[in-house]
Amino acid sequence: MDIEQTIHQMARAAKQAAGAVGRCETRIKNRALTTIADLLEQQSERIFQENRRDLQRAEESGLSPAMLDRLTIHAKTIDSMAGGLREVAADADPVGTMGATWVRPNGLRVARMRIPLGVIGIIYESRPNVTIDAAGLCLKSGNAVILRGGSEALHSNRVLAGIIGQALESVGLPSEAAQVVPTVDRSAINALLAQEELVDLIIPRGGEGLIRFVVEHSRIPVLKHYKGVCHVFVDQTADMQMATEICYNAKVHRPGVCNAMETLLVHEAAARDFLPAMARRYQHAGVQLRGCPRSCAIVDGMTPATEADWPAEFLDLILAVKVVADMEAAMEHIARYGSNHTEAIVTSDISRANRFVREVDASVVLVNASTRFNDGGQLGLGAEMGISTSKLHAFGPMGLEELTTRKFVVTGDGQIRE
Amino acid sequence: MDIEQTIHQMARAAKQAAGAVGRCETRIKNRALTTIADLLEQQSERIFQENRRDLQRAEESGLSPAMLDRLTIHAKTIDSMAGGLREVAADADPVGTMGATWVRPNGLRVARMRIPLGVIGIIYESRPNVTIDAAGLCLKSGNAVILRGGSEALHSNRVLAGIIGQALESVGLPSEAAQVVPTVDRSAINALLAQEELVDLIIPRGGEGLIRFVVEHSRIPVLKHYKGVCHVFVDQTADMQMATEICYNAKVHRPGVCNAMETLLVHEAAARDFLPAMARRYQHAGVQLRGCPRSCAIVDGMTPATEADWPAEFLDLILAVKVVADMEAAMEHIARYGSNHTEAIVTSDISRANRFVREVDASVVLVNASTRFNDGGQLGLGAEMGISTSKLHAFGPMGLEELTTRKFVVTGDGQIRE
Repeated sequence: MDIEQTIHQMARAAKQAAGAVGRCETRIKNRALTTIADLLEQQSERIFQENRRDLQRAEESGLSPAMLDRLTIHAKTIDSMAGGLREVAADADPVGTMGATWVRPNGLRVARMRIPLGVIGIIYESRPNVTIDAAGLCLKSGNAVILRGGSEALHSNRVLAGIIGQALESVGLPSEAAQVVPTVDRSAINALLAQEELVDLIIPRGGEGLIRFVVEHSRIPVLKHYKGVCHVFVDQTADMQMATEICYNAKVHRPGVCNAMETLLVHEAAARDFLPAMARRYQHAGVQLRGCPRSCAIVDGMTPATEADWPAEFLDLILAVKVVADMEAAMEHIARYGSNHTEAIVTSDISRANRFVREVDASVVLVNASTRFNDGGQLGLGAEMGISTSKLHAFGPMGLEELTTRKFVVTGDGQIRE
Repeated sequence: MDIEQTIHQMARAAKQAAGAVGRCETRIKNRALTTIADLLEQQSERIFQENRRDLQRAEESGLSPAMLDRLTIHAKTIDSMAGGLREVAADADPVGTMGATWVRPNGLRVARMRIPLGVIGIIYESRPNVTIDAAGLCLKSGNAVILRGGSEALHSNRVLAGIIGQALESVGLPSEAAQVVPTVDRSAINALLAQEELVDLIIPRGGEGLIRFVVEHSRIPVLKHYKGVCHVFVDQTADMQMATEICYNAKVHRPGVCNAMETLLVHEAAARDFLPAMARRYQHAGVQLRGCPRSCAIVDGMTPATEADWPAEFLDLILAVKVVADMEAAMEHIARYGSNHTEAIVTSDISRANRFVREVDASVVLVNASTRFNDGGQLGLGAEMGISTSKLHAFGPMGLEELTTRKFVVTGDGQIRE
């Protein structure tokens, strides 16, 4: 059977299974989730063994140490996957919930009921824990899922899929509710993106190249973000101690993630007070600073920034720094170079805070807090599936609710249209 | 300048204007809306004149009487457009509204603010009133809009666009917030669908051919429905008088629209009581009935249905009729042939009603009411932009809220991630 046929059959089986998972009671779904967690712990030796096969091949093919690290399943990876599943089991089930009911003048009662999307395709790279995290979220939200992980993680993903299938069957759910694409062939991605009649949503997670490929080739709706070029604007009215802590945290806490700050914008009236001390803290942490001419004039030893630095997502201990005339100039810079991901202001002026919040176009806008809080768990959504910078359907972190939609439920006693 | 350049410049101007409309106060947007309404009434003679130019050309090119009728702007079309705008002005403005705020353990306050989508492209056929209705909804929801109407309505759409632009400028908004594509060339559609960096959403309205073309060629998210193959299931426990009124209304009230019933499903235990009298009412109204073998055995003079009748959207006084063994068989039929648009059950059994509501996959599911209520106005959403059977972002009638999205607003006093 060729790859297109294989994927088509998987998608049909997923659609079939989606009905069963979509109708499934919460307690059964929760039991499946905790069973996966238990099996992960009980079968950890088998998981390490299959993971070592992937690691061996990856080493032979010369994968970078950073990629090898992301590919490795440690004992603490098992703990984190199992813990995540138990958290998702504890999260509230969105399926079937209904908001307010309103009554029309003719007596019709109208409400909206949350329902699963159906079949979700996840396309991701290297980290095998995504297999468990994504399957858990899809299962809890009543969706079937097709997982296409990185080819370098195939053995790891297969053993994890086997465990998920075992848990699903143990509670009477079809194992086709979570399937891993069983081939490393890249054409499987194209085949998956062509299943528009069967697959309701595609979520790509990985580098910008992968995501652009998916957007370009999919007729199925895609939720994604390309990159996070996040700014912090330090206003002249900012508490300088607070600004220093926020800017340090936003850049240094975890520089390789999408909600890390990439460019610091400083009000010109604050620059002389703020920048020299801030720069010293950054330099102690090994952060390379690339400044506009005015920043370089204030701080010794800054590298002059080039035009390429302003739209850059460094994902590293590198920071672009710019002194701006006022908040308008900061917002113009953000509108031009930002990625609609995460933007923050540090200010003590309430009207500036309000204006920044209203006018800046980003999925999460923060006042007096670190950009690192753009995260489903940190914002209280529970576990998350990633962050969307598309405005349709989901904008920001995607939790269980974003994996569902709402249908109208209308109840009458014989109403007809006049 | 070629068409691609023209469209690209329009999209850039729209994106620019979207900022101004997105930030605009509600009372200014409302004044623009009522000004458009006033100008439509004041300049009706000019509108009729331009509309006659379109009609004349359409007649010469042999457009069908039905199409000519849809193209015609009558005095009552003006009334309806002006009335619609005044209703939208009276509707609540979703932009800037925030739901509940929750507080995280670290004191961060999290809320979600409704914001416009940005730039919306509408691609539609023949009816020039869509130009006004769509522009009004987009303006109220803070979006800029690019309108690509049918080539046969070009003069009508242009004069309407001129009036919209005049109203926008009179309140200090850029006229580029609502632009009509100034050419009849079909390649303008392709050019518009390629503006993925500038246009946030495409809404096609028209025949299935147009909509499939748009979905196939767009990388921009599309909200649409292909067709409405709507069912009413008459359960054995139904009040037969109520079932008759609902089934009559769902088919006969306005057979040419997407929420009209196309197939009637009848529980076998109700068929002998229900079908003969129902068929007589339909036959008096000129409805042609196409029945399954069991229906034909009960009702004299029914045409036998063929396989092609079950997935058909007749949009006419034609109805397919099927006797089913039970509700499961009805739901299986709907799952197989339905279009996720509108599905209704007539029953007096509460557990069947609940199960039908939970399990039937449609944007609007009704109990004991006519399918004709799948409509934004009827469901209390205010004016509507159309109906979506896509599950992402909007599922069902799209009102002002569906033309917006939500961003997270996070307020702290110096929180950083530990």
